[in-house]
Amino acid sequence: MNILIVHAHPEPASFTAALRDTAHETPVSQGHEVVVSDLYAMNWNPVASGADFGSRKNSDYLVYALEQRHGWDTGSVAPDIRGELEKLLAADLLILSFPIFWFSVPAILKGWIDRVLVSGVCYGGKRFYDRGGLQGKKVLVVCTLGGREHMFGPEAVHGEIEALLSPILRGTLAYIGMDVLRPFLGYHIPYLTAVERAAILGQYQARLASLMDESPMPMPTLDAFDERMRPKDTSVQA
Amino acid sequence: MNILIVHAHPEPASFTAALRDTAHETPVSQGHEVVVSDLYAMNWNPVASGADFGSRKNSDYLVYALEQRHGWDTGSVAPDIRGELEKLLAADLLILSFPIFWFSVPAILKGWIDRVLVSGVCYGGKRFYDRGGLQGKKVLVVCTLGGREHMFGPEAVHGEIEALLSPILRGTLAYIGMDVLRPFLGYHIPYLTAVERAAILGQYQARLASLMDESPMPMPTLDAFDERMRPKDTSVQA
Repeated sequence: MNILIVHAHPEPASFTAALRDTAHETPVSQGHEVVVSDLYAMNWNPVASGADFGSRKNSDYLVYALEQRHGWDTGSVAPDIRGELEKLLAADLLILSFPIFWFSVPAILKGWIDRVLVSGVCYGGKRFYDRGGLQGKKVLVVCTLGGREHMFGPEAVHGEIEALLSPILRGTLAYIGMDVLRPFLGYHIPYLTAVERAAILGQYQARLASLMDESPMPMPTLDAFDERMRPKDTSVQA
Repeated sequence: MNILIVHAHPEPASFTAALRDTAHETPVSQGHEVVVSDLYAMNWNPVASGADFGSRKNSDYLVYALEQRHGWDTGSVAPDIRGELEKLLAADLLILSFPIFWFSVPAILKGWIDRVLVSGVCYGGKRFYDRGGLQGKKVLVVCTLGGREHMFGPEAVHGEIEALLSPILRGTLAYIGMDVLRPFLGYHIPYLTAVERAAILGQYQARLASLMDESPMPMPTLDAFDERMRPKDTSVQA
């Protein structure tokens, strides 16, 4: 199995980096191939722009998704984008490894999403959710938070964490057709003892060992919607 | 009144830019002061890193929020961050103007959020939500989408748009204490006629004219939670 870890943390010695290393070592010990894209170490450019395309379909007016298609088809997409998308296409499992910044991914990782998930390859037209371009691949989101676990939940101060992560879990990863596993969350990380941190690494290692047997999170199926993307069963319409 | 528009679109002639210009011209015609931060035009650096601090409190291990506090207090935070935060502190109304990328903000704007919303100034300790640092300021999110309006809703294919925007509306803007107005959304923008686009600009202009009379969206109040951020009313606990 091929695994791609996309890691984004500004501190090389962070606990998130320890999680990344666990996600590297456990599968390698099982005989899997692991590739790591460490976005800070790579000095990754997160800004989607016209400069991402060596030749433009329309040099007067930028529609980024249309230029992505053209750039990929003609081989003129920026080499850093091509390199990352080739890694992703070769992967059976993607792991996104990051600290929560403002209930979302750090900007450098958002820019990996914006630039690498190329229209026409990962999605396009009616190819999204269970018809997305990356069907058959799995993805695990692994993130660290400062907040305590009781601060997240239906009646908790910040609401439900999986709802807060929904633009990523559903709107991005499920949208491109991936099987989205339940995220692995490390709460209250800056305040934990070394023993507590080691316990989390142990839980993560155990989870990784049986990850491929897990059922993915429930996500929308386009079978429930008509050609114009209206719900087929009118009894469930709002 | 002082208004800050933070705009992020890679195409200078985009419809989002037309919305930005409407948000500029309408208040100016009413006698308000408007400042625009056009992040693409400014070549804004979106990557939060140790390089954001001229002198570090801890040069061995980066805890970004702690260095933000130290950097702001000692005047050693990067000049681009200081400049943006000073604009924000001077504003009565913030307008975030962007196209939806992956059900969220473009990376360049995420990096404005990550870097400019400095800990200790905008939030910190128990100062968040209705005790956040930017209480008394209003914020309007203005964004454009490719999808049609019927694709968003409780039973729609993508779910509810305000839920998808919740990490920004609630987790970021309400978190720092701002009064969050209902977002202004332009659906299906790439496919609209000039007449349809002009109608949206007209609706936006009308909305801007009475914006300051609007009630903000309901958001959490810390009065409902105890010192450890557990709900006070145990009858509503999950």
